[in-house]
Amino acid sequence: MSDALENSQARQRLRTLGEALDSGALQQVARILNGGLSPSDIAHLLESSPPRQRALLWNLVDKSLEGEVLQYLSDDIRSYFLSKLNAQELATIIEDFESDDLADLLQQLPDTVIQEVLDTMDDQDRQRVEEVLSYPEDTAGGLMNTDTITVRPDLSIDVVLRYLRRHRSLPPMTDSLIVVNRRDEYIGVMPITKMLVSSPSATVREVMDTDIEPIPVTMSDTQVATLFERYDLISAPVVSEKGKLLGRITIDDVVDVIREDADHSLMSMAGLDEDEDTFAPVMKTTKRRAIWLGINLITAFIASSVIGLFEGTISKVVALAVLMPIVASMGGIAGSQTLTLVIRGMAVGQISGANVAWLLNREFLAGALNGVLWALVVSVAATVWFGDPMIGLIIAAALVINLIAAALVGTLLPLFLKARNIDPALAGGVILTTVTDVVGFLAFLGLATLIYG
Amino acid sequence: MSDALENSQARQRLRTLGEALDSGALQQVARILNGGLSPSDIAHLLESSPPRQRALLWNLVDKSLEGEVLQYLSDDIRSYFLSKLNAQELATIIEDFESDDLADLLQQLPDTVIQEVLDTMDDQDRQRVEEVLSYPEDTAGGLMNTDTITVRPDLSIDVVLRYLRRHRSLPPMTDSLIVVNRRDEYIGVMPITKMLVSSPSATVREVMDTDIEPIPVTMSDTQVATLFERYDLISAPVVSEKGKLLGRITIDDVVDVIREDADHSLMSMAGLDEDEDTFAPVMKTTKRRAIWLGINLITAFIASSVIGLFEGTISKVVALAVLMPIVASMGGIAGSQTLTLVIRGMAVGQISGANVAWLLNREFLAGALNGVLWALVVSVAATVWFGDPMIGLIIAAALVINLIAAALVGTLLPLFLKARNIDPALAGGVILTTVTDVVGFLAFLGLATLIYG
Repeated sequence: MSDALENSQARQRLRTLGEALDSGALQQVARILNGGLSPSDIAHLLESSPPRQRALLWNLVDKSLEGEVLQYLSDDIRSYFLSKLNAQELATIIEDFESDDLADLLQQLPDTVIQEVLDTMDDQDRQRVEEVLSYPEDTAGGLMNTDTITVRPDLSIDVVLRYLRRHRSLPPMTDSLIVVNRRDEYIGVMPITKMLVSSPSATVREVMDTDIEPIPVTMSDTQVATLFERYDLISAPVVSEKGKLLGRITIDDVVDVIREDADHSLMSMAGLDEDEDTFAPVMKTTKRRAIWLGINLITAFIASSVIGLFEGTISKVVALAVLMPIVASMGGIAGSQTLTLVIRGMAVGQISGANVAWLLNREFLAGALNGVLWALVVSVAATVWFGDPMIGLIIAAALVINLIAAALVGTLLPLFLKARNIDPALAGGVILTTVTDVVGFLAFLGLATLIYG
Repeated sequence: MSDALENSQARQRLRTLGEALDSGALQQVARILNGGLSPSDIAHLLESSPPRQRALLWNLVDKSLEGEVLQYLSDDIRSYFLSKLNAQELATIIEDFESDDLADLLQQLPDTVIQEVLDTMDDQDRQRVEEVLSYPEDTAGGLMNTDTITVRPDLSIDVVLRYLRRHRSLPPMTDSLIVVNRRDEYIGVMPITKMLVSSPSATVREVMDTDIEPIPVTMSDTQVATLFERYDLISAPVVSEKGKLLGRITIDDVVDVIREDADHSLMSMAGLDEDEDTFAPVMKTTKRRAIWLGINLITAFIASSVIGLFEGTISKVVALAVLMPIVASMGGIAGSQTLTLVIRGMAVGQISGANVAWLLNREFLAGALNGVLWALVVSVAATVWFGDPMIGLIIAAALVINLIAAALVGTLLPLFLKARNIDPALAGGVILTTVTDVVGFLAFLGLATLIYG
C-alpha cells in the first residue's frame, strides 16, 4: 500500500492549491502551478482533482507546459482535454514530443484531426510518426522511439566520443549506442558505460555486445516488459522482420506497461477499466457501473431460479434458507482464491500446458481438504443451531462438493477463457461466482430435498 | 493480460525440459539449463515448476550460477532453497552480490546464519552490507546499493573521463556520476549523456544538475517508486539525514517494487500473499487458504444469523428466500467496485482529505442512480415471477438502500482502515461484503416483515 497519503508535502501543496481555488485566488494558483511544479506533478494534481477544479486548473496551466502535462495524464483524462483543442493548438503543443508519445496521443484523436496535425509537420517528423502509427499501440512498434544514435562497427571509440560531442544533447535514456551496418541492419549494442572504460583506440566492434537479441517490432508490449524485467534493460533496439533497425524502447515506457498490466487484473476483476478516472463525473461513473451491475444481475437471477426449484422443500424446512448463503459464499471465496492465483500466474507466464495438470490436482486436493475441514466446523455449528444432525450432514456434504467445484472451475476457467481470447480477469469472476452459487444451492437444496422431500 | 502462454519459444523450452525430466535424462536437462539460459530464465523456470521438478532442476543448476538465480527468485521460493544451504555454501554463492541484493537475501535467514556469513566477508564488504541491513527492507535504505561512483565538482570532464577509464567496469545502471564535496555530502548528479556532449575542458560544476533532490534514506519504497515513475529516473542518490551520500537506488530494483505493490492489491483482495508461490505443495496451500476461508465463514454466519431473525416471515412467503440473494449480491458487486477504485486511488496517491468529500458524494449519487435503475428492473421481474406487486416494491426499496450503503462503505472503509494501519486490500473486501450482506438481508426481510408479518 502506498504512503502517498502521508506524503505531507504533496498534501500540503494540494491543500494550499485547494484553498486558493476555493477562494478564487486564481493568480496564486497559477503561480504555484507554473512556478516549480514539474509537468508530471501537474498531471498528478489534475488526476487527483474533481471535475470542476480540474477544468479550472487546466485553464491555468502555462501553454508551454500543456504538451508535457498531457503526456503524463492517463488516457481517459487526456482524451478529454485533447477533444477541447483545435488542430492549430495541437500542432503547437506537440512540437517537442517524442515519436512514440506523439503516436499514442494521436491515436486518441478522430482520423480527420490526425491528418490535420500530420499536415502541419515537416516531412521527416511526419514520416517518423507515421512509422510508429502504423504499428498497434500494444506492440513493440507502438512503444518505440525513432530517436536512436547509431554507429558503425569499424569506428574507434575516440571517433565515437568526438561524434557524440557534436550533439547538443543525447536522447533521454540513452544508455547505449546501437551498432548497425551500412544497410541499417542491427549488429549489436555498445553500452556507454563499457565505452567509457575502454581504450580510445579500440574499435566499436571490439567493445560492443552482440549477444543481446533485438526486439521484433511485432512483439506484444507485455512480452517486451517481461524481457526488460528479466534482463534489467534500460533500453533495447527494435528491428523489422528483416533485421533493419527501426527504433528503440526505453524503460520509462515499459514501466507504464508494467503498471497498466498489473492494474488491469485488479480493476478488471471489479469490472473497472485500468485507466478509470478516479474523479469521473457522476453520470459517467453511473453509466459505466450500470453495465457491470446489469451483467451481475443476470447471474444473480440464475442463482435465484435454482433456489426457486426448491421452494417446496424450503417452506418445509426454513433453516435451509438461513444456511444456504454459507455454502454459496464459501464456494465463491475458495474459487476466487484459485482464480486470482491462476490469473496472476498466467500474467507472469508461469502457467503452461506442461504444469496445468499438476496445478489442477493440487487445487483439487487443497479444495477437498479445506472442504472437509470446514464442513466439520459448519456441520457442528448447524446441528447445534437447529438441533438437527441431519441438516449438519447435508450442509457438510454440500460444502465439500462446492469447494471442489470451485477449485476445478477456478483453475480451468481462466485457461479456457484465455484460449478463446476472452479476458479472464474481466469475465472470470462473474462466471465463477455464478457456478459456485448454482452448485452451492443445487447441492445443498438438492440433498435436502432427497432427505426431507 | 500476458501473451506469455503464446510465447512458443518459452513453451517449447519448458516442454523439452519437462520431457527430459520425465524420462530421467538429467544430463540433457543440465545441458539445457546451464548452456545458454540466463539466470533470470532459470529462476522463471523454477518458479513455473511443481515441487518435485523444481527440486530436481535446482540440483542440476551449476554452482557458479546459483547465486544469480537466487537473486531472481521470489521471496517464498528463495528462502526455501536458502534454508538448504550451509554457511560455507552461502559464502561462496554470495561473492558477487551487490550490497542491496545481499542484504535482501540475508534478511531471510536466521540471525545466527547471518552472523556466520558476515564473518566470512572482508571488512569493507561486511561494513557495506551491515550498513544496508541497518535499514528496513521497505525503505530507500533497504533498496540502495553502496557502489556509487563519485566525483568532486572542481574536476574537469577530461580528468573524469580518464578517471573512469581506470575502472575495469562501471556498476550496472550507471547513468550518472554523483558529485560530492570532501565531506562526502551530496551536491548534485552529472548525467553521463550530458558529460559526453560537454567540452572536455568544462568542469563538473558547470555540467552537473543540482535541481535533483536526493532521496532521504528513510523514505518508503513506494514513495521511491512514485518518484522514479514521475521523473523517469534510472538511478537516484540516497542521502542520510545530514546530507551525506550513502548509496544509490537503480530502476531495476524499483521495477520490482512497482510490480510487488501492484500485485499486492490484487492478491490481498483474494486473501493471498503477493509472492504466493503458484506451485506451492498441497499442504502449504491448504493451510494458507484455510485461514482465509475460516475468516469468511465467520462473516457468512453473521449474514445467516440475520436471515435467522426472519424465519417466521420466510416460512410465510418462501419467495423471499428465493429473491434475497439478489439484494445481497448486487450490494456486494457495487461495493467492491467502489472499494477497488478507492484502493487503487490511494495506492497512486490521488486520494486525500481534500477530495474525499467530493468522492463520497459522487459515489452516493452513482449508487442511488444505479439503485433506482436496477430496482425498477428487478421489481418488474419479481412481480411477474411471483405475481405479487408488493414483493416487487419490497425488493426495489431494499436494493436502493443496499446500493447506497455499498457506495458509502466502499468509499469510507478503506480510508478508515488505512488510518488505523490495517491493509484495506486485505481486510476491505471481507468487511464490505459482510456489511452488504447484512444490510441487504436486513432491509429486504425487514421490510417484508413489516408488510407480511
